[in-house]
Parts: sequence; structure tokens; C-alpha cells
Amino acid sequence: RPLREVLFFPVPMTCLEPLLSPGQKCSCRLSHTDSALTRLLFRLLGAQRSLDLCLFTFSCPVLARAVLSLHQRGVRVRVVTDSDYMAASGSQMGDLRSAGIPVRHSQSSGYMHHKFAVIDKAILITGSLNWTIQATQTNRENILITDESVFVKAFLKEFEKLWNEYDPA
Amino acid sequence: RPLREVLFFPVPMTCLEPLLSPGQKCSCRLSHTDSALTRLLFRLLGAQRSLDLCLFTFSCPVLARAVLSLHQRGVRVRVVTDSDYMAASGSQMGDLRSAGIPVRHSQSSGYMHHKFAVIDKAILITGSLNWTIQATQTNRENILITDESVFVKAFLKEFEKLWNEYDPA
Ligand SMILES: [Zn+2]
Ligand SMILES: [Zn+2]
Repeated sequence: RPLREVLFFPVPMTCLEPLLSPGQKCSCRLSHTDSALTRLLFRLLGAQRSLDLCLFTFSCPVLARAVLSLHQRGVRVRVVTDSDYMAASGSQMGDLRSAGIPVRHSQSSGYMHHKFAVIDKAILITGSLNWTIQATQTNRENILITDESVFVKAFLKEFEKLWNEYDPA
Repeated sequence: RPLREVLFFPVPMTCLEPLLSPGQKCSCRLSHTDSALTRLLFRLLGAQRSLDLCLFTFSCPVLARAVLSLHQRGVRVRVVTDSDYMAASGSQMGDLRSAGIPVRHSQSSGYMHHKFAVIDKAILITGSLNWTIQATQTNRENILITDESVFVKAFLKEFEKLWNEYDPA
């Protein structure tokens, strides 16, 4: 069955522990309902082999925690980001690098303004949403999730192009 | 045949006159080759009945000219935008309004950060690209164009929701 999902933001803050720590019951006071953010997390955490991230900004702690947990269970994570924003306040790039995830950044003028992810070379997540708390909780944003091969292949090709272009070696 | 198109930016500046003034030969010194921007313009100019624009920022003069020409030939154009950016330097929103195109803006805190367009209620254009010269000529950006009904319907619904929510009346 083809995967065609659209998520809109903002969403109210909800508890994400049941997704991040499966099997554990959570009794905190936050709402435990489904939201666009739980849907996004669910898709990310479904990665089995690889996660290619191409993100203008990445400061949302819960999304970083999900990416780190993928890395820890052996999923090959690669990150491309914008040079100006990778050192911005709250950026998760330092933590990702410290954990051993390779992060490459833009080398030229102009923003690396993409906000997409490709899971297992098979599922594309793309849209207007920067991976920040402000974007998920405050802004009007969209994300589209699809396994349509025309789209997946085009974005994978763009990822590999930037990955090679931003090789510091 | 299903429409599945992906465009990547930046693109070098090329002449867009042949698209904007069909039938006229242009002999200017710019390149007259195809690019992601000519593809985007081509899709926009194909609108027959309606164009719903939901744009965080809109300052690119050539895209504004295309939208104005659609309005002038009777296409129903509606615009939703962000309140903070509509008065920014170079914004085309004043010109669109002066021409009689209805423009509504966000009313609450948080950015109206979408960057999508729906043509004739049938074709969705969405991605990371803000409609600015910097974005098209300098940034790494993507646009996805599709007539997949799941996607088109979801974004149309979001447009109508914001259109009603931002009604100043
Ligand atoms: Zn909880
Ligand atoms: Zn010319």
C-alpha cells in the first residue's frame, strides 16, 4: 500500500515518552494523544538501515533524541546542514557529532535551506518544517511523507550530491 | 499521466521573457535555457481557473508578475501570508493587493511558514522554497509538484482553514 501522509503543525506539546521508550508506561501530566509530531517520530523511529538528514536547522531535543537512538541501534545516520546555523544556540549538531554521527555543512554562500529526511532509501519526509521547537509548537508548517519512487530518488540524489560537495576532506 | 516533478535550486539567472510574454522573441544577453525557475513559472502560468497561494514570504518580482498576469486574465487568485513579512522590504503583497488580489495574513504569534501553491484545485506545488530572489538564485532549495489527490486535498483543506481563520471581517 503506497505511503502518502501529510502532517500539519503547530501541535500542542504532548508526552513522547511512550514512543522514545517503548514498553514503558508513562504517567506524567502531559497529554498522551497522537499528533503530527508523534507521527513524525513514529516514522523516524521506524528506520532499519539508514537515515539521511538534510536540515537547515535542527534544535528540537526530542527529534535529536530519536536520531541518537537510531544511531545507537546501528542505523547509519548522515547529516547535511547549513554552516551558519549549525553553531546557533540550541543546535543539536554538536551532540550528534559527539555521538559519532557524521555531520557535513554547506561550504558556500546561500543557505542550505532544505528540510528533508530519507529513511532506508525508501521513504521521503519533506516540507516547510525546520526541526525546532518553535516550528513544531508555534508555526503553521507542513510535512509530506511518501514512498513514491520518483520523489524518493530525486531527493536521495540531491542528498548524495550535497554530501559529496560538502566533504571537508 | 500522473504529475510527479521535483525541482532543485539555486539556478543561475536566465531570461524569463519568452514565458511571460509568449509569442515574442527575446534577443537579450541572458541565457534562454530551461531551469527549475522556468519549470515553476510554466506550471503557474498553466492555471486556468484558480491559484491559491500560501507563502511565508513573496518578494520575487518575476513570480509576482506571473501571478498578476493570471489575475488579469481572470484566474481567481487568493493569497495567505505571514503578517510579519508582508510589509518587509521588497514584499510583493502591496502590488498584489493594489491589483485587486485578496491577501490575508496570519493573526496570531508564530510564523505562517508554509510555502505552497495549489493550481486549479488539482496541482500542488510545495517545498522549502520561499518566493524570493535569494532563495531561487542562492539557496539550496526544493520544490515538489504533484497532482496526487491525497496531497492536493490535504493542502487545499489547510488553505481553506487558514483563509477562513485569517478573515479580517
Ligand atoms: Zn507522559
Ligand atoms: Zn531574453
